[in-house]
Amino acid sequence: MRIVVDAMGGDFAPHEVVKGSLEAARLYNADIILVGDKRLVEQELPKDYKQQYKNIFVVHADETISMEDIPSNAVRRKKQSSVHIGLKMVKNGEASAFFSAGNTGAIMGASKLILRTLEGVDRPAIGAVLPTAKNPSILLDVGANVDCKPLHYLQFAIMGSAYAKIVMNVEKPQVGLLSIGEEEMKGNELTKTVFHLLKSCRVIDFKGNVEGKDIYKGTADVIVADGFAGNIALKASESAAWYISKLLKEELKRTVISRIGALIAKRAFTRIKKRSDYTEYGGAPLLGVNGVVIIGHGSSNSNAIKNGIKTAYELASKNVNRDIQENISEAYELLKVDKSDSFWNNIKERIRKIKPED
Amino acid sequence: MRIVVDAMGGDFAPHEVVKGSLEAARLYNADIILVGDKRLVEQELPKDYKQQYKNIFVVHADETISMEDIPSNAVRRKKQSSVHIGLKMVKNGEASAFFSAGNTGAIMGASKLILRTLEGVDRPAIGAVLPTAKNPSILLDVGANVDCKPLHYLQFAIMGSAYAKIVMNVEKPQVGLLSIGEEEMKGNELTKTVFHLLKSCRVIDFKGNVEGKDIYKGTADVIVADGFAGNIALKASESAAWYISKLLKEELKRTVISRIGALIAKRAFTRIKKRSDYTEYGGAPLLGVNGVVIIGHGSSNSNAIKNGIKTAYELASKNVNRDIQENISEAYELLKVDKSDSFWNNIKERIRKIKPED
Repeated sequence: MRIVVDAMGGDFAPHEVVKGSLEAARLYNADIILVGDKRLVEQELPKDYKQQYKNIFVVHADETISMEDIPSNAVRRKKQSSVHIGLKMVKNGEASAFFSAGNTGAIMGASKLILRTLEGVDRPAIGAVLPTAKNPSILLDVGANVDCKPLHYLQFAIMGSAYAKIVMNVEKPQVGLLSIGEEEMKGNELTKTVFHLLKSCRVIDFKGNVEGKDIYKGTADVIVADGFAGNIALKASESAAWYISKLLKEELKRTVISRIGALIAKRAFTRIKKRSDYTEYGGAPLLGVNGVVIIGHGSSNSNAIKNGIKTAYELASKNVNRDIQENISEAYELLKVDKSDSFWNNIKERIRKIKPED
Repeated sequence: MRIVVDAMGGDFAPHEVVKGSLEAARLYNADIILVGDKRLVEQELPKDYKQQYKNIFVVHADETISMEDIPSNAVRRKKQSSVHIGLKMVKNGEASAFFSAGNTGAIMGASKLILRTLEGVDRPAIGAVLPTAKNPSILLDVGANVDCKPLHYLQFAIMGSAYAKIVMNVEKPQVGLLSIGEEEMKGNELTKTVFHLLKSCRVIDFKGNVEGKDIYKGTADVIVADGFAGNIALKASESAAWYISKLLKEELKRTVISRIGALIAKRAFTRIKKRSDYTEYGGAPLLGVNGVVIIGHGSSNSNAIKNGIKTAYELASKNVNRDIQENISEAYELLKVDKSDSFWNNIKERIRKIKPED
């Protein structure tokens, strides 16, 4: 298997990306193709990397998309970027998966342009795999699509369920809708319509609304939201976790006694870090495109890169996209969705007419 | 000063409410009027409470609004509830503030009905005061208004600024808009319009978007959002904090050594709990109504009740509402908002025409 890695993507590229790729090359039975400015990438590699690593390759890219680039412009204008070249290798069957910790919007746009979406999927979604008190949950979308229509949520639900089933090994994934109350009538105008649609479609196992306060309880395997709400839920939690760890450090350092206590319990803190550290969770899948794309956190260190490559490797060895495709077709059949009719314009009325028994 | 407390509000009412009220009665120089089922309330009070506490009074209410009641129904039908009777006492000048840890939607609805909103305020908003790495921030709305129009955000910004200035003693509160990227063009269709409106109105000090990841950094004194996004940000953070403290407990208990370490550092953990515990933050103000209303967390224990009463006491001793009223008038003057014209229908176009220099 061959995994393409965007060597120029992320706040600490190419240094941390190359470092993480070398670790991945040692651990996984896959060829790793680093795409980027050849001179810069090879500076980060050992001089004899070709002898030392039989499975590391470098492919040159003339251009680099920075974190500050406006995604739509970068997608249109920087056609020789490491993102474009890497994705084209996946498109052409030269590689099985693409990983980048770079500009999320640009990776999303270029993936849509080059790989195209799966049939029936309007928009790819970014899924974040969250640790919870039970099994991990996948939350999607976390930022690719800020303004969504009801049918997009259904697509997210199907994509998330496929991922939970095939990658996370959940037999019958339960889907929840991110909202502000458990009851059906709680939520905003949009999510109330979505609730009705998801309840109507037995291709997914819809369990109702999931409140913000229940996210880390693990009450649902898949949590769907538009990219705005999903992103805020994800980032607000990260912020809260950051704040608590800051408090912990401050308070444990405050007195000699607490410093001694912390030193004795050091291993417990290391275990907590490992269980809650995002770098252990290896990147977010971009679901719904015709190929395997994993997006890493912009601030990825080499450990996060290594785990992101691992996720790409695992995802590429399984056929999530076929499952998505089959279930989308089935859902459209059940809901009698014909994309050529005016369904898309009056979905609200149509959905309200669908009975759960249909 | 007289504070009315809804003795029947909250998951642990009336027990914890009465207990917290007694603590508050000992600490603060205020009369506390417990409204609720007199028999049940007096069961929780010491037999000689009238001798022991000169500042505790009980007022009977025939009805109780439960956490499960549908807010709109409860507001219309349970006119003899402790919420209605308590709010009427504020309306009639018999008390300066109302505190309840009960059904949020019902408190909000009844407050709007009985106290009315301040002139120029369309909807009251619930503000949550969050601890941050710098000073506390107030996030609003956190659930009263799920679907908002741009002008509602401006009202929230003005109400939050008044609270930050007068209660939190911030000289010139900086306002941020909760969104999914720092730049002006990031966000959903609604927040992009709101960005433009807030930037145009110099009554507030607008500093731009605040991302989820920055909430606990304390980059803004006031963070505005619609009730959907605000609620999700607040509750997702609570969920993350709950999860981390669960991990902490599990890992610190795992080995004898870590248990010893944790015991030695016990005081540090107590300090952390105090700094991050919501029960220390005493309830959320309902801003924009013609009176002082504080809403407590449903699961409030006596400590949270005591601190909620403290917040009510502090807020009632200051005139936040006058400041809100003045600034709303000034903002409407600057923006030339006339609620009788069609402004409300075509606000998007109008806002786009307003130049920041106006």
